[in-house]
Amino acid sequence: MKFSIEKELGNSRGRVGKIETAHGDIQTPAFIVVGTKATVKALTPEQVSSLGAQAVLANTYHLYLQPGEEILKKAGGFPKFMNWQGPTFTDSGGFQAFSLGAAFNKSASKIGNRHDEENSADAVVDPLEIPADRFAKVTEDGVEFKSIIDGSAHFFTPERSMDIQHNIGADIMFAFDECTSPLASYEYQKEAMDRTHRWAKRSLEHHRKTNEKDQALFGIVQGGRHEDLRKESAKIIGAMDFDGFGIGGSFEKEDIYTAVGWVNDELPKGKPRHLLGIGEPVDLFGGIENGIDTFDCVTPTRIARNGSLYTRNGRINILNAKFMEDFGKIDGDCACYTCTNYAPAYLSHLFRAKEMLGATLASIHNLYFIVNLVKEIRQSMLDDRFFEFKESFLKGYYK
Amino acid sequence: MKFSIEKELGNSRGRVGKIETAHGDIQTPAFIVVGTKATVKALTPEQVSSLGAQAVLANTYHLYLQPGEEILKKAGGFPKFMNWQGPTFTDSGGFQAFSLGAAFNKSASKIGNRHDEENSADAVVDPLEIPADRFAKVTEDGVEFKSIIDGSAHFFTPERSMDIQHNIGADIMFAFDECTSPLASYEYQKEAMDRTHRWAKRSLEHHRKTNEKDQALFGIVQGGRHEDLRKESAKIIGAMDFDGFGIGGSFEKEDIYTAVGWVNDELPKGKPRHLLGIGEPVDLFGGIENGIDTFDCVTPTRIARNGSLYTRNGRINILNAKFMEDFGKIDGDCACYTCTNYAPAYLSHLFRAKEMLGATLASIHNLYFIVNLVKEIRQSMLDDRFFEFKESFLKGYYK
Repeated sequence: MKFSIEKELGNSRGRVGKIETAHGDIQTPAFIVVGTKATVKALTPEQVSSLGAQAVLANTYHLYLQPGEEILKKAGGFPKFMNWQGPTFTDSGGFQAFSLGAAFNKSASKIGNRHDEENSADAVVDPLEIPADRFAKVTEDGVEFKSIIDGSAHFFTPERSMDIQHNIGADIMFAFDECTSPLASYEYQKEAMDRTHRWAKRSLEHHRKTNEKDQALFGIVQGGRHEDLRKESAKIIGAMDFDGFGIGGSFEKEDIYTAVGWVNDELPKGKPRHLLGIGEPVDLFGGIENGIDTFDCVTPTRIARNGSLYTRNGRINILNAKFMEDFGKIDGDCACYTCTNYAPAYLSHLFRAKEMLGATLASIHNLYFIVNLVKEIRQSMLDDRFFEFKESFLKGYYK
Repeated sequence: MKFSIEKELGNSRGRVGKIETAHGDIQTPAFIVVGTKATVKALTPEQVSSLGAQAVLANTYHLYLQPGEEILKKAGGFPKFMNWQGPTFTDSGGFQAFSLGAAFNKSASKIGNRHDEENSADAVVDPLEIPADRFAKVTEDGVEFKSIIDGSAHFFTPERSMDIQHNIGADIMFAFDECTSPLASYEYQKEAMDRTHRWAKRSLEHHRKTNEKDQALFGIVQGGRHEDLRKESAKIIGAMDFDGFGIGGSFEKEDIYTAVGWVNDELPKGKPRHLLGIGEPVDLFGGIENGIDTFDCVTPTRIARNGSLYTRNGRINILNAKFMEDFGKIDGDCACYTCTNYAPAYLSHLFRAKEMLGATLASIHNLYFIVNLVKEIRQSMLDDRFFEFKESFLKGYYK
């Protein structure tokens, strides 16, 4: 994997660049589409590619449980399994081992929001409210968790996560990390962060010894919302020989401008930075302005399946009665496949009739919207009009 | 609409031909894909077209209830609404008014199988077992039935069915008929058939007076499994000035060679004949050999959504454990999109993980299989090897 910076954005940390992988390039900043279980929900790879997506991110936790790493190894990796030709990422499974282990049989038990496509609850749950036998158990060695599918017990270590990710076979992998609840104390956040650093070192060492397919490995910065912890984590992780970096943790809106900035001031400039599980329009602008190169998030497809669609004037819900006879445009002059070929009235019909094509068409539109918003932001940076574009877009979207 | 016969199959009633419509030609014999609610379930129109489908059949009953004829009229007809560019059919809604009215809130209450994609129960229910207030009420004027969606009361007459089908806007419509239960007595079958003939006349007269968009109208032959009734029905309906004919009723395997033959010997040769709701491979051969030009059936997509796939060696269920690690071929050298790009192991994964893409890929394969089987049958007729092809195909499929 190779990363190059084409242009830096004045008066900010932003940059325009390119990640080169064995399966193609990613023009950055870029929004990476989530395909949790080796499928971008409701879409064929050709539909994903046609809407402008450059890369797909799958999840180690989910693929480890189903179909299992052995099947993916036999398939020649998840990209081949799912027929995706472009670059790929896998998250390390750390976040899901903590959040979803606790969530088994409890649909509302969810900590944070890092591309957790399977559980749609948005509530942040106090870890103390989760029964002890459900909560993932952390030791120095790794984390013991319960499967969200059948409640069976599993154990992930940094080394195991690397082995599994080698079998899953993405171009870019992530180190195994502990993602704490935003409700955890400062002391616990520091303890977990220190452990994440030790796990990062173990991930990297094991990866360097066993990496046979030239997969790249990104380290993950943690540290919650605390400036000192974030800076310390970025310094320590940034000093390790990773190919790039992920920024983890649960974020509030304002953290994009604070925590992300603190981190990126410490990270080495010449390596790519991925903001994990973030995809709201305002956060994309904020992240890019603060030096983020890639994002991933389940929100566009998750809300699409519920009939919620992005427009330049904010989100709409297609199940609203006013769309039943609306033969206008879903989103102005949007050039996506869905907007080009279908009226709001048709999408309204599909969702009301519970037809699967509704989820497909809505997912295409939402992914197109977000993927191409990031492309437009990139172009605005090249054209030296990032701040003007940001102001005009956000004014329309959040009016 | 224009129909021409290109070649007749010796020693049989079969023929190769062409139906020309304002939206393109249908090379016959042809399998017409069902899009009950103005969507071929889980597929985009481009996917439907790519797999080789020539035409789509929607259902008047379902579209009348949802989204309603007014919305379809405003849309410029269902084909435009769903973005399907090719020829289209609508069934008259007669069958569903009888069978689905009774089925409201009773998943097993189903009479017959004429492209009823919504209810997956296969049981044929004795009408006497259905509570009287649920059963559709037939009068000379029409049929009163309960909506399958909300149980509300509705009334269809032949004239109403024509008006609705004009608003829905297919190239080819069907006359309003009464489809009896195969368990009904001879006396009732005759009574219903006579009424269907009177309704056919009313359908045709109303259509001729009010048809503004040059839609074609097919009359429907009924008469159950009784030779005298079938012949009488074919003679009477065949003598009316319809553009083509549908053959309705619930069929057993052997009826394809008896009832269909009786009917087609009476129908005028120069007009197309559609066998309603039939699509098993053996029935396609039998129907074509006995003079059928077009078929429609929900089976390929309905079973696909349950993981059942056609192969040249019979049906397989992809949820069978042996497919979990199968990286071979789903169906030999099948050239469909699904077989070209995905292993059985991937489909197995999608169905086990309850991913929507599973239904899409399985539907593409099954429709490709049936649509192209009929195309192969057509070619075998042109090449004078229909009977050889039939024998070799059926030997493999039903071995």
